[in-house]
Amino acid sequence: MEKTEDKNQQQEEEQVVNPWEVSAKDGGKIDYDKLIDKFGCQRLDQSFVDRVQRLTSRPPHVFLRRGVFFAHRDFNDILDAYERGDKFYLYTGRGPSSEALHLGHLIPFMFTKYLQDAFKVPLVIQLTDDEKCMWKNLSVEESQRLARENAKDIIACGFDISKTFIFSDFDYVGGAFYKNMVKVAKCVTYNKVVGIFGFTGEDHIGKVSFPPVQAVPSFPSSFPHLFSGKDDLRCLIPCAIDQDPYFRMTRDVAPRIGYHKPALIESLFFPALQGENGKMSASDPNSAIYVTDSAKDIKYKVNKHAFTGGQDSIEKHRQYGANLEVDIPIKYLNFFLEDDVELEHIKKEYGAGRMLTGEVKKRLAEVLTELVERHRRARAAVTEEMVDAFMAVRPLPNMFD
Amino acid sequence: MEKTEDKNQQQEEEQVVNPWEVSAKDGGKIDYDKLIDKFGCQRLDQSFVDRVQRLTSRPPHVFLRRGVFFAHRDFNDILDAYERGDKFYLYTGRGPSSEALHLGHLIPFMFTKYLQDAFKVPLVIQLTDDEKCMWKNLSVEESQRLARENAKDIIACGFDISKTFIFSDFDYVGGAFYKNMVKVAKCVTYNKVVGIFGFTGEDHIGKVSFPPVQAVPSFPSSFPHLFSGKDDLRCLIPCAIDQDPYFRMTRDVAPRIGYHKPALIESLFFPALQGENGKMSASDPNSAIYVTDSAKDIKYKVNKHAFTGGQDSIEKHRQYGANLEVDIPIKYLNFFLEDDVELEHIKKEYGAGRMLTGEVKKRLAEVLTELVERHRRARAAVTEEMVDAFMAVRPLPNMFD
Repeated sequence: MEKTEDKNQQQEEEQVVNPWEVSAKDGGKIDYDKLIDKFGCQRLDQSFVDRVQRLTSRPPHVFLRRGVFFAHRDFNDILDAYERGDKFYLYTGRGPSSEALHLGHLIPFMFTKYLQDAFKVPLVIQLTDDEKCMWKNLSVEESQRLARENAKDIIACGFDISKTFIFSDFDYVGGAFYKNMVKVAKCVTYNKVVGIFGFTGEDHIGKVSFPPVQAVPSFPSSFPHLFSGKDDLRCLIPCAIDQDPYFRMTRDVAPRIGYHKPALIESLFFPALQGENGKMSASDPNSAIYVTDSAKDIKYKVNKHAFTGGQDSIEKHRQYGANLEVDIPIKYLNFFLEDDVELEHIKKEYGAGRMLTGEVKKRLAEVLTELVERHRRARAAVTEEMVDAFMAVRPLPNMFD
Repeated sequence: MEKTEDKNQQQEEEQVVNPWEVSAKDGGKIDYDKLIDKFGCQRLDQSFVDRVQRLTSRPPHVFLRRGVFFAHRDFNDILDAYERGDKFYLYTGRGPSSEALHLGHLIPFMFTKYLQDAFKVPLVIQLTDDEKCMWKNLSVEESQRLARENAKDIIACGFDISKTFIFSDFDYVGGAFYKNMVKVAKCVTYNKVVGIFGFTGEDHIGKVSFPPVQAVPSFPSSFPHLFSGKDDLRCLIPCAIDQDPYFRMTRDVAPRIGYHKPALIESLFFPALQGENGKMSASDPNSAIYVTDSAKDIKYKVNKHAFTGGQDSIEKHRQYGANLEVDIPIKYLNFFLEDDVELEHIKKEYGAGRMLTGEVKKRLAEVLTELVERHRRARAAVTEEMVDAFMAVRPLPNMFD
């Protein structure tokens, strides 16, 4: 009975956001205010941006000052502790379901790299090859291969090897990590995970077993080679907001097993080229710009597929201007054009109809091409030995320096 | 809905046998014929006993020739392969929920030791400290401590260290073992485990996650340090029949992930002193003889608590004789008095009323005291170093010699 009720409840709701599905009401835009209300997290307002700037003595990341990371849980506690001189550690991750990452995948890593540099803290990155093996019905071997390929893209984001441990679940689950999985699993009923994740009786038990695997990197004792004797170390998780259900569960359990609740800093979804009604989809190559796309690919995709708020004819455009609220090139520039002055200029001119869609698209293609080329060069420099080194279970003696 | 139906179905049935509950209809005896029918396993008939004797060139174990191990799944396949010259490996285990083992706990280990010696095959013994941590709400540390204490009792049964690997789940889960857990979990729906194990929505997800942990020692690839390159090696599991549900599930999954189904050889339950209506209970010390009981304890428990088929008065006993069908001393002697001639003599004399209950109890106390004393001496000789050695993850180069 409960399961059926839960399903009905989900269907009646306006939008669905969980780790496997992001869909807005009637194909519209995600209502992030409602999401914050429903999930019970907090808005990340300007006072946080100012405080981060003050504490780190460096300009806040573009994703922070433009509200890409827009929600949080207990980020204030992390900053309070930091201000008192207590460090923390970062935890983020990726489910390796495809070989090539798209720009949406890079966002948490670009932001995490900034946090690592700004706060000078260690970082653990979980590659959930077990999850993808179970959800996507990949073989163990294929999931592990994708995890390793994805690790190269992650390393290419510039993480500091003296402060970063990347691990695959298939390699690392066991020992203290498994003990924490059992401790978490003991505290969560089946009804509870059904309520949080919407599983049904026909889902396999691998799915039911997985939430503790994603939960336990939130606890320093899951990494004895890094944090032995530092059970009080706090954890901050930068992620897209669709991962919030895992960490709601984790935060619910944490105090019952003697651990701190992890803090979260959560991002918007990066919109598909076709318009802002969800996440980009790895299964539709034209919905996204991939880090493997050539300059030509990018130009083609932006020109051909990017949904625009410009008017149908030049005459109408000059008269009415572009609708920036729905314009994907403007959204993308908001993420990736770091120059605030130029962005404001483009928005003003484009919104007033003095700049044409083609010009904005051209500038976007330049910005994305530069980003993708830079990523590709960095990734080409990542050797197998570097992957081994990042993924080695080892102490990080200088991780707080 | 399904969950409710399943619960009703269980309540309507005459007897409940699963890994956590063994109860006969109306407090009567377990109907093993019905159990075999319901579970779908086979009777282990005399032809198997004869065949084992022929193949191993030694007398069959008392548990085999007296039908203590009374049911099987595919034991014939194991023997066919063995006859062709193909070896197999043994897998058994224990959930370490208490410090002191009772005689019922020893039965699978005594029999497994015989099988190891007779067939000259390797053995893996799983200590499910994770299971007991979750079901009995023990701490991780206490479960691990109990696992290690129980390992000493198991080693005291005389296993060959050159052919035996004992492992605790908390220590060993990970790597190839975890990969197999994920492969199994992918193949089993939540509805399926509800049907097999009777979980409800209020059970925690640790319980739902556990069946794959007990399943995967059935597959040689879970032990790369032992069986690397021997993926075709068959597995034989000696266990009490209440563990059958785990291995029904395992056998269902095995061919779907490219593995052999494990074979099983399954025992009756060892009856409580108070009578044959279930298993002995670790929570009622007077229901069982413990390996830590003194000669005096044993004498007291047998005299005071063993349910007897003898008559109320000596006169009636001499006239009608004892009812051997319900007599616990006779049941216990059937397990532990190895001398067939003496056992037949006692049954004949006692059944005819020529031997009194007190005499049979006296002989039983002697037999059990000898068994327990021998076990205690053997256990006292087990050092911490021996436990470490049995539990070390290591190759066993001579395991088939």
